[in-house]
Amino acid sequence: MNIISSSQNDKIKYLNKLYRSRNRRKEGVFILEGKRLIEAALAGGADFKKVFLTPAFFKSAENDNLLADLKLKAEFIYLEESLLKETASTVNPQGILAVVEESVFKGDYFYQKADKILLLDRIQDPGNMGTMIRTAVAAGFDGIIALKGSVDIYNQKVIRATMGGIFSIAIRQKLSQEEFLTEIGKEAADYELLAADIEAEEYHFEHNYSNQLILMIGNEANGLDSKLMDAATSKIKIPLAGEIESLNAAVAASVIAFEILSQQLKL
Amino acid sequence: MNIISSSQNDKIKYLNKLYRSRNRRKEGVFILEGKRLIEAALAGGADFKKVFLTPAFFKSAENDNLLADLKLKAEFIYLEESLLKETASTVNPQGILAVVEESVFKGDYFYQKADKILLLDRIQDPGNMGTMIRTAVAAGFDGIIALKGSVDIYNQKVIRATMGGIFSIAIRQKLSQEEFLTEIGKEAADYELLAADIEAEEYHFEHNYSNQLILMIGNEANGLDSKLMDAATSKIKIPLAGEIESLNAAVAASVIAFEILSQQLKL
Repeated sequence: MNIISSSQNDKIKYLNKLYRSRNRRKEGVFILEGKRLIEAALAGGADFKKVFLTPAFFKSAENDNLLADLKLKAEFIYLEESLLKETASTVNPQGILAVVEESVFKGDYFYQKADKILLLDRIQDPGNMGTMIRTAVAAGFDGIIALKGSVDIYNQKVIRATMGGIFSIAIRQKLSQEEFLTEIGKEAADYELLAADIEAEEYHFEHNYSNQLILMIGNEANGLDSKLMDAATSKIKIPLAGEIESLNAAVAASVIAFEILSQQLKL
Repeated sequence: MNIISSSQNDKIKYLNKLYRSRNRRKEGVFILEGKRLIEAALAGGADFKKVFLTPAFFKSAENDNLLADLKLKAEFIYLEESLLKETASTVNPQGILAVVEESVFKGDYFYQKADKILLLDRIQDPGNMGTMIRTAVAAGFDGIIALKGSVDIYNQKVIRATMGGIFSIAIRQKLSQEEFLTEIGKEAADYELLAADIEAEEYHFEHNYSNQLILMIGNEANGLDSKLMDAATSKIKIPLAGEIESLNAAVAASVIAFEILSQQLKL
């Protein structure tokens, strides 16, 4: 077992480079830190490229199953604990991190796979973004579209906030508004295009939702872009009972997503 | 108009002292930065102690109404823009900040005032805490109980995340679990004590909620304390359709709070 201890080693230099998002995106990969996220990625069928781990992690019997599965998928690179901690972005990477390929869905294949889709328009906060993906998965959504101007879905903070959810949902990102609007005219013409609008006539709990739908959630401060709002085929409002002008974007998405799920379960 | 320019001025020293949470709590006050929060506090009937503002803010005609109202409530202290920026915690305090008294509700008065209460058990993240207060207000809740071990409600980040909601809801904090459990045996015996529990038999949308209730939400990582869970008079579960073990605490609170409001609106 060759154990790397120097940050000048080429494989460590490669890893360090990937921690800059521009390099990472150019390579079409992202980084997962810690056993739990790596297990979730494995269960979700992610494509692993490299696994960096400490000798202690490798030797621990409780990691045997995970490592047996991973070994079939990627090169193992062993490094000193101190070097792993120095390199990783989390305080405690727990002995393992992995480089994984971004999943890329072309339009037609994405719409074949996804019936209930959450569209995110210029969401800025990584925690909000991650929470919405986690919530969408929990509510039985099967697709995420993140439009250009949103925070990168493969950002470390987003991935952590999804609590593994990112690996069990189809993802399409870096589409512009225009590209999306053209696309729904073709591939996704049968989808209900849903927007929350304070001026809507129907409450969210009065509406009958379609089986194929795209729920559009807008920027935290400015809401949904007017072009997307105009394209909506259904508008609903969430009642506001108190002295508050609006809901947090992730809260609005959650309330609607679980109303949709509840309706299905009531049938 | 006496305009302070030195951080060695006694009034600025006093303000700086209040930015340490221990001092702030000892004095029973908190700090609001920016016009929007101060307007919300004024509308909510907060007790202002001091207002720190720049000459430019004072002179701007668009602030006349706010300043006329504030003048009746608190001492004005003028300071240089640069000194305000140096002192404040936000990058752009927008020319004004205020020292406001914490509202303190004794148990019996709190329960007279509040019918729908959100109880927060050891919530750690200020953003989560603030979002839950904002959501509770929006869903028509009229009371918040934050148990000991939760982040301080009057923390700057919490206040900002409430988007002004903190001023239109009765707040009770720093109660221990034991104190709360004793209290509900007496003052709040008529309240439904509600907990989300993955093992509950009823879904959240199947339950008939009482008019007087306390919705209990637990710590982000560990959930509700077992003593509180045991004390619950109703348990409900939110369905989880996808490969996700749990919801974010603020998301769970939102989904239940808006189901309660929806039920009332359907009657």
